[in-house]
Amino acid sequence: MLTISGSAHTLKYWGKRDKDLNLPTNSSISVTLDQSDLRTLTTASCSSKFESDRLWINGTTYSLDTPRSKQVLADLRSLREEVEAKDSSLPKISHFPLHIVSENNFPTAAGLASSAAGFAALISAVANLYKLPTDASELSKIARKGSGSACRSLFGGYVAWEMGELENGEDSKAVLVADKKHWPDMKAAILVVSDMKKDVPSTSGMQLTVHTSDLFQYRITEVVPKRFIEMKDAILKKDFPKFAELTMKDSNSFHSVCLDSYPPIFYLNDTSKRIIKLINLLNESVGETVAAYTFDAGPNAVIYYEQKNEKYVLGLLHHFFNHLDGWSEEKFDSKTSSIPESYPLSALDKDVYSQGVSRIILTQVGEGPTQTDDVLIDLATGLPK
Amino acid sequence: MLTISGSAHTLKYWGKRDKDLNLPTNSSISVTLDQSDLRTLTTASCSSKFESDRLWINGTTYSLDTPRSKQVLADLRSLREEVEAKDSSLPKISHFPLHIVSENNFPTAAGLASSAAGFAALISAVANLYKLPTDASELSKIARKGSGSACRSLFGGYVAWEMGELENGEDSKAVLVADKKHWPDMKAAILVVSDMKKDVPSTSGMQLTVHTSDLFQYRITEVVPKRFIEMKDAILKKDFPKFAELTMKDSNSFHSVCLDSYPPIFYLNDTSKRIIKLINLLNESVGETVAAYTFDAGPNAVIYYEQKNEKYVLGLLHHFFNHLDGWSEEKFDSKTSSIPESYPLSALDKDVYSQGVSRIILTQVGEGPTQTDDVLIDLATGLPK
Repeated sequence: MLTISGSAHTLKYWGKRDKDLNLPTNSSISVTLDQSDLRTLTTASCSSKFESDRLWINGTTYSLDTPRSKQVLADLRSLREEVEAKDSSLPKISHFPLHIVSENNFPTAAGLASSAAGFAALISAVANLYKLPTDASELSKIARKGSGSACRSLFGGYVAWEMGELENGEDSKAVLVADKKHWPDMKAAILVVSDMKKDVPSTSGMQLTVHTSDLFQYRITEVVPKRFIEMKDAILKKDFPKFAELTMKDSNSFHSVCLDSYPPIFYLNDTSKRIIKLINLLNESVGETVAAYTFDAGPNAVIYYEQKNEKYVLGLLHHFFNHLDGWSEEKFDSKTSSIPESYPLSALDKDVYSQGVSRIILTQVGEGPTQTDDVLIDLATGLPK
Repeated sequence: MLTISGSAHTLKYWGKRDKDLNLPTNSSISVTLDQSDLRTLTTASCSSKFESDRLWINGTTYSLDTPRSKQVLADLRSLREEVEAKDSSLPKISHFPLHIVSENNFPTAAGLASSAAGFAALISAVANLYKLPTDASELSKIARKGSGSACRSLFGGYVAWEMGELENGEDSKAVLVADKKHWPDMKAAILVVSDMKKDVPSTSGMQLTVHTSDLFQYRITEVVPKRFIEMKDAILKKDFPKFAELTMKDSNSFHSVCLDSYPPIFYLNDTSKRIIKLINLLNESVGETVAAYTFDAGPNAVIYYEQKNEKYVLGLLHHFFNHLDGWSEEKFDSKTSSIPESYPLSALDKDVYSQGVSRIILTQVGEGPTQTDDVLIDLATGLPK
């Protein structure tokens, strides 16, 4: 079985220059999160006795008969054929039908790129089954064709997706900026915001922005390229205040070009805005940048902070959100982690500022795909256990 | 007495290149609204018997001892001195203390540039008292030094503020794009949105954007200059769909650079976003652009539409907001102005979409400053009546 984690952007992917190949208009960076909190378990098996390629996610059947899925499986089969051609002792399984079983523990509403993780898990599981020698960056190009963000999920730690320049997309791939061990103290608190439904799905939203926002061209040609270099540098230097500033600015910039689209796209709601204010006031109160917010294509917040500043961030969350699902009194030490009385934060109306958040997930930077001995498929029947 | 109206932007003023002279980073355009709905009445008088310059607004005393007010009064006195020097038969009143009494009917929370109208009214009233021959564009330069947006309020109809290039600001002034008679069919519905308080005052918000937004420079150098020309052209051609598109895009662009500021500034709230959605759906339903939204530095919406499309806009407002203060059943003809059953609008949850708006003002394009025989000052005492 293959385990793969969720991730959250620090430098946003928004805009495709080629829709078929999923080639982006800018490079992006994400942090892979811990598998105990957010993970997809996937088992792939193949057999001449199976009738067709099949996929189950959390017990429900999904079609693999889509252009993107077919492309991804064809690419993997072609790599297996190469392996078989080089070593005739290997079983010829590349054309056997595949059964893939996947289970994830992502809260449905969390908007944490669960589909990206799912695609990445499918690819990793089949690559393992096929014993492909291919490295993660090569596999990331296949994952990218399935779902853009999926390419980054093949690495743990801090991951960049280099946009590349080639028309065929061969240089548009994920690379490791730094693994988890390099900067293990990075924590993340996810605040799941209750909302009726997403304003606009990401794929159509991206294209609307690309085609209608005046400010978008400037973002991708001038703002992001500079920020991409600075963000990698901040990660390599473990410079949290710089990492935080770039993360918050890029979240603002991404939501700006959404709002500059015509008609405008809104992913932040009034609850998101209150969370931004809480983080700004926290940093102001402490006198240094100890926390950073970021929002993907939805109202949920990811708050990054370092272990050493946990007391401030957990103090804030305790004050406003300790009634929520996912809040852990164990991780919270009330003797050291409350908001000082003098903070402007303590003067905010708690009833107002605790509104609209439905769940908290406390997690941290995590590992890349991991193989275990467990299997989700009943090998006798080829069906989910 | 001098009457002056409120106004609403169609191309936004946001950013100063010189704070002392109130020189803007971009040209802007506004529509002056009708005086019966939004107006400031002002009377100015002067006498050697008065002890000092004094100002009353809606019965409350305000200080004129501020740098901006002193500058404005010094400029007006200097122009009066010139007039007196040319014609020795005129009374020498330029150094008499001034008493200025002002009353306005702007709803406090409407955020409709009431301070701009107030400054413009003060200047017009004193200019009339002094019988200055100065034209409105020249006076607009004085008004600009008092409060940037005030310069446009010296004209009725469709008014541009040309940013100018000179360091001393002598070419940064208001000019008439077209008077009310040119395009008299322009209507405006103002939806006053309930909100606790403004996120950031305009003056400090502008400077935050100028100094921190990456996208702002692109907006002022590339986006607005082109839009300024197109907007004037749309007004001259009375091309409502183009006027509407530019107005909505510029509102989006302005709020985008606010959100791109660091920390971000939010003037739109969830109610504002619902109003944007209603207008987009209305235009989609009708199959042409019959209404345009715009939001200044606050959550209140101004909806522009032409007389001939009143039935659609009033139909929409009737459906969602006919319980509100300011709604006029007289202006609404229920036989012709309801939302067709087939519209996606009629499927929206009325309870959700009618939330958050506290008042409606139905108005239209209006005249510039108007003089009447009424006076607000008791000439015997020099105090407000």
